[in-house]
Amino acid sequence: MKLKILKDRLNESIQHVSKAITNKTAHPILQGIKIEANVEGITLSASDSDISIQSFIAAEENDRTVIELERPGSVVLPARFFSEIIRKLPHDQAEIEVKELFNTVIRSGTVEIQIVGLDPDEFPSLPQIDSNKMVTIPSELLKTLIRQTVFAVSTSETTPILTGVLWQLSDGILKFTGCDRHRLACSQARFETNTDVHPESIVIAGRTLNELAKLLPDQNTLIDICFSDNQVLLKINSILFYTSVLEGTYPDTSRLIPQTFQTELVIDTKMLADSIDRAYLLSKEDKSNIVRLDMKEDRTIEISSASSEIGKVTEQLQTNELNGERLKISFNSKYMLDALKVVDSEQIFLGFNGPTHPIVIKPLHSADHLQLILPYRTIN
Amino acid sequence: MKLKILKDRLNESIQHVSKAITNKTAHPILQGIKIEANVEGITLSASDSDISIQSFIAAEENDRTVIELERPGSVVLPARFFSEIIRKLPHDQAEIEVKELFNTVIRSGTVEIQIVGLDPDEFPSLPQIDSNKMVTIPSELLKTLIRQTVFAVSTSETTPILTGVLWQLSDGILKFTGCDRHRLACSQARFETNTDVHPESIVIAGRTLNELAKLLPDQNTLIDICFSDNQVLLKINSILFYTSVLEGTYPDTSRLIPQTFQTELVIDTKMLADSIDRAYLLSKEDKSNIVRLDMKEDRTIEISSASSEIGKVTEQLQTNELNGERLKISFNSKYMLDALKVVDSEQIFLGFNGPTHPIVIKPLHSADHLQLILPYRTIN
Repeated sequence: MKLKILKDRLNESIQHVSKAITNKTAHPILQGIKIEANVEGITLSASDSDISIQSFIAAEENDRTVIELERPGSVVLPARFFSEIIRKLPHDQAEIEVKELFNTVIRSGTVEIQIVGLDPDEFPSLPQIDSNKMVTIPSELLKTLIRQTVFAVSTSETTPILTGVLWQLSDGILKFTGCDRHRLACSQARFETNTDVHPESIVIAGRTLNELAKLLPDQNTLIDICFSDNQVLLKINSILFYTSVLEGTYPDTSRLIPQTFQTELVIDTKMLADSIDRAYLLSKEDKSNIVRLDMKEDRTIEISSASSEIGKVTEQLQTNELNGERLKISFNSKYMLDALKVVDSEQIFLGFNGPTHPIVIKPLHSADHLQLILPYRTIN
Repeated sequence: MKLKILKDRLNESIQHVSKAITNKTAHPILQGIKIEANVEGITLSASDSDISIQSFIAAEENDRTVIELERPGSVVLPARFFSEIIRKLPHDQAEIEVKELFNTVIRSGTVEIQIVGLDPDEFPSLPQIDSNKMVTIPSELLKTLIRQTVFAVSTSETTPILTGVLWQLSDGILKFTGCDRHRLACSQARFETNTDVHPESIVIAGRTLNELAKLLPDQNTLIDICFSDNQVLLKINSILFYTSVLEGTYPDTSRLIPQTFQTELVIDTKMLADSIDRAYLLSKEDKSNIVRLDMKEDRTIEISSASSEIGKVTEQLQTNELNGERLKISFNSKYMLDALKVVDSEQIFLGFNGPTHPIVIKPLHSADHLQLILPYRTIN
């Protein structure tokens, strides 16, 4: 392999595939980036046990010559050093030449770098995915679904399936659900489809979705998602993102969600979030995170928290609507803050069925996004 | 104590004094900020064993009413919570009222916060400093002196005096020196003075100077520095910064600095820094940080480093001058990078006296800034 390539374009692709590299892996080949060059361009690949990312750079892009190929070939180079040194090369162009035993020379100006490369045949091959089961959705929808659910997944490995987000695909609707034992977040998006899609139900690790979200472009673009039994492939412009699917059965959470409420409350989202944030400041000093919501006979509520060492925060908020039974309820302020942060609506609906039943949180005029928080059982 | 105060101005002063609060201290009173209010304004104080910071807020500033005093008094409030809650208050103004047993109530809009306050009489009193021994220097000079020396102090507590920077004051010159066992950095500034100043020589902890640098304003202003036997006081606008002086005798470093050189080299500072940076990338993979500089018979030098696992970086640089004996010398690339980063000069002078003697680094046309790095003894 021998070629010249524009440094910035190479750097961009390295940053994309590097998201698949974790430090936890012991195998040196998985700490590397595989580079394959042919007349069309070069393909970079990186992989850990859960995620694989591939990024293609075409030899010509928008009438600009990106790569001058002299000899095709392939090699695996150590990801961290390769990434850092390419970024710091003195010139716009880098020459990469693979010599005997995969020893690789990178030249740029008067700089010459020799890197011990590895055999690309030892690099794991990427999964084969049948692209018959494919849907296409806008990247912004996918970004919203991830943002509104991924924070709620469990961080405990005692129930591995709950560390992932459930994706449920049915005709024209993609629904995400994340939950741990204390809260639940689900969000769904409707999208246009020309083909009949078989219903799918898979679970993808929260960590993977956080990496995926970083790869989604700022500008809205269409993403192809291909499903297979144990893998999902996302095509994001010139990037292929492969992820394995978590094994196990996701619990049926639909029965947890109440359809009627004894108490219904509508309030300005930011006003409530700011208030919970102040109460959280104090509640976290006691590491309890307990905040209390106390409904008054008029349309006001009182938010309060206390720490035996520091003191007490109390404030009154005006609601827009407060109907039904008044109650005092305690909950985790951090969970409520997380929930309020991802609501894209100026006003928010909260539904209650007594102080020991889950609190339901929804944007005022949408049924596509719903969250649920279990209250604390405290002495009132 | 009872008063109303503009939130943003209070917040600013809290940020200033908070720099004196460390988490290491066990005494609760030192985790607090002391607030004293009288007709002139309020004074905030914070202190750990080494640093004390006081910030004054005048009741009227630039024809604007900042504080409305109802009742003078004082209290100590827990720094972290007080700082966070003031920043997050819903309105521009906060009311602070100290009640019996130093219980303090903060009100802003419909928010009411009760904080368990502490007795201000238990707060340590600030040092008394004789302001006869005072010099005045521009804040930018002080900032430069700190930046060019503080990084070189020792981080090891085995020789405590070397964890500080030596300040030497003589008529019209303030000189800073920082060194550990491998490198030395000194920088001096000349300033105008109307009075005779007694020579002073004190050592101030590097950690303290890093905090001080953060308090120096972006805009150049005059700073008063008052010296006493075991304390230094700096007056920075409305802030008083007290620091204790490290005990012990600072080594005489002047004899380490060679006056003549067997080899003299002049080179573009950024070009050398970029090159050392690339070599550093590789050298740090081996945790050795060793980089080699090899002088050629013409006016070029070769910078190289190698890692047994990853590979080798080599590059040729054109010098502007290279006179005297050619040599091969190895040194710590991280130390050289640190040194080059603080040089405010496009071209740099490096002086050598053989491969085992210190390397001297100076800006090309200034004698006010000098650094020294010990080379590694390696097999050539």
